[in-house]
Amino acid sequence: MQLPPDSSRGLRPRHTGSVALVGAGPGDPELLTLKAVKALQNADVILFDNLVSNEVLALAPGETRRVRVGKRGYAASCRQEEINGLMVALAASGWNVVRLKAGDPLIFGRAEEEIAALEEAGIAYVIVPGITAAQGAAARLKVPLTRRGSARRFQVITGHAARGGLPDDFDWAGLADAGALTAVYMPMATLHLLCAELVARGLPPDHPATAVFDATRSSERVVTATLATLPSRLAEQTHDGACIVLIGAASSKEEAAPAALCSDEISGNAFAAGI
Amino acid sequence: MQLPPDSSRGLRPRHTGSVALVGAGPGDPELLTLKAVKALQNADVILFDNLVSNEVLALAPGETRRVRVGKRGYAASCRQEEINGLMVALAASGWNVVRLKAGDPLIFGRAEEEIAALEEAGIAYVIVPGITAAQGAAARLKVPLTRRGSARRFQVITGHAARGGLPDDFDWAGLADAGALTAVYMPMATLHLLCAELVARGLPPDHPATAVFDATRSSERVVTATLATLPSRLAEQTHDGACIVLIGAASSKEEAAPAALCSDEISGNAFAAGI
Repeated sequence: MQLPPDSSRGLRPRHTGSVALVGAGPGDPELLTLKAVKALQNADVILFDNLVSNEVLALAPGETRRVRVGKRGYAASCRQEEINGLMVALAASGWNVVRLKAGDPLIFGRAEEEIAALEEAGIAYVIVPGITAAQGAAARLKVPLTRRGSARRFQVITGHAARGGLPDDFDWAGLADAGALTAVYMPMATLHLLCAELVARGLPPDHPATAVFDATRSSERVVTATLATLPSRLAEQTHDGACIVLIGAASSKEEAAPAALCSDEISGNAFAAGI
Repeated sequence: MQLPPDSSRGLRPRHTGSVALVGAGPGDPELLTLKAVKALQNADVILFDNLVSNEVLALAPGETRRVRVGKRGYAASCRQEEINGLMVALAASGWNVVRLKAGDPLIFGRAEEEIAALEEAGIAYVIVPGITAAQGAAARLKVPLTRRGSARRFQVITGHAARGGLPDDFDWAGLADAGALTAVYMPMATLHLLCAELVARGLPPDHPATAVFDATRSSERVVTATLATLPSRLAEQTHDGACIVLIGAASSKEEAAPAALCSDEISGNAFAAGI
């Protein structure tokens, strides 16, 4: 992980640097907040994850230094400790750093580790929230995340434990609740286990389950299914990037047949958009 | 609920009207998305809730018609059916309508009823997500909504059932889970019942619970406490508007003593900001 050479912008570090942990939203650059755009425009250096789209990065001035520090699916290309160290070192040298994360930095963004590093080093920092993937997907699907009668609770979980596989300390009663709408982040590797366990714990096999790939991007794909059918419909997917599953959300929107979802073209687009 | 007379802008309805259900975020106008600002700037009419701040409304052109249709705390000033009817009638007459809701329109915004009315009437509509109060509060508190080890699940609930009191179909096992971070919307009327029940179901009395009033606004107030102490610390509050409670979130930030939280000045500010 090399920092690119300084640009022609000729910036000199300010006396006191700072860090903004900024949410880049689910992909559509118009889903960044005004505060996030302002942070990008004032940054000296942007440290960005793989899932941040090129269109989002284009909101910063062309000469701003951009450093990819992202993790790609399940294979970390930068260790978290390296990211923390780079972020702190740049800010301590006087730069204004934007740490740009897909979605909301406080939802499955490992923010607690970066916050701890910043606190320990005494670096000034702010957090700028972002639209998380579940919100982007729901808006596109036109599916409420809460409903007065039938879905009083909305919850987000990850299907991917730190060491792989389903997390071993899931509160299954809380997940197998027909009155909740559950968004599963990083669902692909464990979806078959999750859906089977939810049915075993009492949710009906025809409970709605919808997968959204690349939510809010031009490459967005939707597969509307049920707990019983979604894993097999996605089984041939090798795509492990920008996918979210909404359990309990019935959508009338269906944009792609399963065959299309398995094509190289779509997987390729997804990764290209994530760089 | 009267529609104000047409303005000097001299707009004539377009042939085909439409509706955008737009999230206004938690209060700070810089937390609107670019897409939300664009919708406000292109609107003919804005139908807004009480909790939408003046600063957010100021993002629309001065001559755009603004109609308050909001519900104030537990006392509905406009019935939902009236809001639906006005929204449909305006769009059917050819206007571009923004239905502006605090936070995210799909989280505790009764969007399902407005969506149903729009679908039934055949009105074209889009949904623009917004930063929800829990995200705004967490960013200000610098508290992650998920953590790798200790809070793998983030969930949002309402403390206010449709007919008042705690919802009678809560999944208590899912709520009394020390591995979840729970954001409670509209918590004030039932917080003592909720906290007592969570302790009775196994959460420790010193489990962290933080109340945030007017998250992300200049009038923001934070009370950091526990399940055992938060209800009594807030007991003298008459404020039933923009408050959120984060259960499981320990914050080092404490901005107001309980005495200050009970002052008329703060309650007054909160309502003024919500208009």
